[in-house]
Amino acid sequence: MRSGHSQGTVLRADVVVVGAGISGLTAARRLTQAGRSVLVLEASDRVGGRTVNLDVADGVVTEGGGEWVGPGEDRILALIDELGLSTFKTYAEGETIYLRNGVRQTAAGAVPPFSEAALADFVQVLTMLEEMAATVPPEAPWTAPNAIAWDATTFGQWLEANVQTDETKWLLTLGFTIVEGEDPHSASLLWILRVIATSGGIEHMLGTAGGAQDSRVVGGTQLISLEMARQLGRRVILGSPVTEIRQSDHGVLVTSEHTRVQCKRVIVAMTPADADRIRFVPDLPVRRATVQRKWHNGTESKLFAIYDRPFWRDQGLSGQALTDLPGAPFVIDNSPPDGSLGILLTFIGTAGSGAGLTWSDAVLDDPAVRPAAFLDALTTLFGPKAARPVLYLEKDWVHEPWINGCVSARVPGLLTQYTNAVSEPVGLIHWAGTETATVFEGYMDGAVRAGERAANEVGAVL
Amino acid sequence: MRSGHSQGTVLRADVVVVGAGISGLTAARRLTQAGRSVLVLEASDRVGGRTVNLDVADGVVTEGGGEWVGPGEDRILALIDELGLSTFKTYAEGETIYLRNGVRQTAAGAVPPFSEAALADFVQVLTMLEEMAATVPPEAPWTAPNAIAWDATTFGQWLEANVQTDETKWLLTLGFTIVEGEDPHSASLLWILRVIATSGGIEHMLGTAGGAQDSRVVGGTQLISLEMARQLGRRVILGSPVTEIRQSDHGVLVTSEHTRVQCKRVIVAMTPADADRIRFVPDLPVRRATVQRKWHNGTESKLFAIYDRPFWRDQGLSGQALTDLPGAPFVIDNSPPDGSLGILLTFIGTAGSGAGLTWSDAVLDDPAVRPAAFLDALTTLFGPKAARPVLYLEKDWVHEPWINGCVSARVPGLLTQYTNAVSEPVGLIHWAGTETATVFEGYMDGAVRAGERAANEVGAVL
Repeated sequence: MRSGHSQGTVLRADVVVVGAGISGLTAARRLTQAGRSVLVLEASDRVGGRTVNLDVADGVVTEGGGEWVGPGEDRILALIDELGLSTFKTYAEGETIYLRNGVRQTAAGAVPPFSEAALADFVQVLTMLEEMAATVPPEAPWTAPNAIAWDATTFGQWLEANVQTDETKWLLTLGFTIVEGEDPHSASLLWILRVIATSGGIEHMLGTAGGAQDSRVVGGTQLISLEMARQLGRRVILGSPVTEIRQSDHGVLVTSEHTRVQCKRVIVAMTPADADRIRFVPDLPVRRATVQRKWHNGTESKLFAIYDRPFWRDQGLSGQALTDLPGAPFVIDNSPPDGSLGILLTFIGTAGSGAGLTWSDAVLDDPAVRPAAFLDALTTLFGPKAARPVLYLEKDWVHEPWINGCVSARVPGLLTQYTNAVSEPVGLIHWAGTETATVFEGYMDGAVRAGERAANEVGAVL
Repeated sequence: MRSGHSQGTVLRADVVVVGAGISGLTAARRLTQAGRSVLVLEASDRVGGRTVNLDVADGVVTEGGGEWVGPGEDRILALIDELGLSTFKTYAEGETIYLRNGVRQTAAGAVPPFSEAALADFVQVLTMLEEMAATVPPEAPWTAPNAIAWDATTFGQWLEANVQTDETKWLLTLGFTIVEGEDPHSASLLWILRVIATSGGIEHMLGTAGGAQDSRVVGGTQLISLEMARQLGRRVILGSPVTEIRQSDHGVLVTSEHTRVQCKRVIVAMTPADADRIRFVPDLPVRRATVQRKWHNGTESKLFAIYDRPFWRDQGLSGQALTDLPGAPFVIDNSPPDGSLGILLTFIGTAGSGAGLTWSDAVLDDPAVRPAAFLDALTTLFGPKAARPVLYLEKDWVHEPWINGCVSARVPGLLTQYTNAVSEPVGLIHWAGTETATVFEGYMDGAVRAGERAANEVGAVL
């Protein structure tokens, strides 16, 4: 990696990739493997995008961003393997805590300790959603028979109308809010159906062992990008926010704050919202320009309480909890593989309006209130030892300067009104990023698939 | 007005206003009138924000942005009067054309030439919406009895479910798409109900004579801002995009590309989406930061065909048309007050998915297709003379570098999840812009009200 080029020099490459997250680095890697010359321009001073390792102790990291991989996520798993990295199982032994309306229950396995009625409701709702999802073509969800109606419906509204029991409504609202970083009352039903159809189904999406939260990467997920960047070497230029992409008869001139590169094709591997910071010459088509402005990603920050050991395991607890406590609606064990430290993780996210969303305005807005609310909740759940962590950490994604949110989310109308504008090439510009994936969109796996798809598009025309 | 200060000098003022649209200039004007020292920093090289005059001929302008005022918009009308400007009636004599499914009908007045059933449906739907709107408290719509359910519902979905006839569905979808710059299938029902409750009702919103499109400003609406800026003189600094707002115990330091100003309070008079370009130190609260990222405004561009005279008036036509033609779903006479030239105006906007939305991908994306599609539609509506304008103009708002869209619009969930985050002061920072108005939000009148409210907030604490 290098940084700092004089404005005067114009570099040359076959392809410029904008953004050194998993998607951009994968595209650069595949093109380099195919013998193309590539330069990657990254705005921030690190690689990894929405994956980042946080140091919690000497030689111990925890994941500040995207972290889990699961069965079916074939492309990210293949990439992890190809890079010589390894995975380990998310700790999920023992019982999960369910605490709602002051009632604390525990249960092992994936089935919540609900009433018969709520369990039957849960199964029925999942069946309904998955039957609907099966009618949504992954590559073109806007062609589904009910596309316009479902895209004009929020998922939260559908849940309110179709879920019979409070317990199931709470669990699904909470689960999807955490998974998507967005209140379902703001998300398109059509979009969530496409995600369900292409991400292994609901139980997979919400599940730990055998599900989307099955495994973690030894050493943290940022290693995926760090290792790709290491192998790409001087092809990756950090601290180089792209300000302009100019197409002409001679190719594309990509200008960043410190660098200019003349290339044949460019791959923009950013969220559509982030791409809107770049000046495009000539102007982007109206549909692409508008989709960039209308886009926002779901956003969650992570709070970590770090203990000298995972003491909850002694009590037969997995460390997982689903609650209606302000400060920790969802908790999961995020300890390192050897359990040498104990780490409990929660998310704070969107200001929710629906069932099961308990982040208060104070918790969201006041950095001084957050740790106390989190530790209070952990103490209620795991006992007095939880009140005294050796370290408290936050990874704030809301104020991240170069990244709009974490998880892909779509507001109503976007899919049916703008269809393929998010991924359709514009002249010599191609688009990557997990938001352009049609399978495992929003996941690290989607990021790899999108990067490989963009590399294939470019490779086919160079 | 002035531009260009050396980075070294730190200017001083009681208040810095960021943004020289109608809202910011009104705030600056009121504070100046109250004896406060004020500086206005504007990113672009002109004042007016979403109002701009376009030269169409020697001494003749037409309005490239916001243009209409109507009864009840008391604050903008008072400001126009105070500035010595005057208004004239939008031309609305003669008959309006309704063209749908190849059937052309004409009718004078506001009542469309619909079947009895469609007219009864129209009246019933308006009654239902206005009864619902009456339950929405303008200052706090999130406290309405049905707030969460309505905010999780799109207006388009409500129309699909509650409008019985195709004619009425088409007219309402089209009317609201033009007025809000947004497909109703993406807009919150709760939000539109608040707008209906505070903007004079639906017939007023959609109406010309006596309605929200009743009058125009002689010389164009940008004159409102130009005259305020002229009177503010050197207090208005153009070409000065604010990059950072830093609060400390000593007040606020506002940094733009060319200027630094130390002040006691700052008023940010931009859309929430545009405010997201500024770096705030310390970080904004999570709710405010998130609402800025989730915000987008509705966007429409304007296409103008300019003729040597308003020939349609000879045929007893008002120049207004509601159609399902790709290229001109809504047409209105935008000629100068003396009719010395004839100008027909249409809007192209969002890629629509619902009934009555006819902008094709080609019209949206291909600048070469747009004029032909527009003139074809005008020829179908007004005859062969319409095919030969003396001038064709576009005012593109999609690619405007400093302004995110035109009209205030809210996606589902935003009002109930983020409630007052859009207008609640953050320390020494106050918020203006029509998006913060609770009456006539999205209108020029809302911009004036918001500017005056922010000036009052600041004036009360200085």
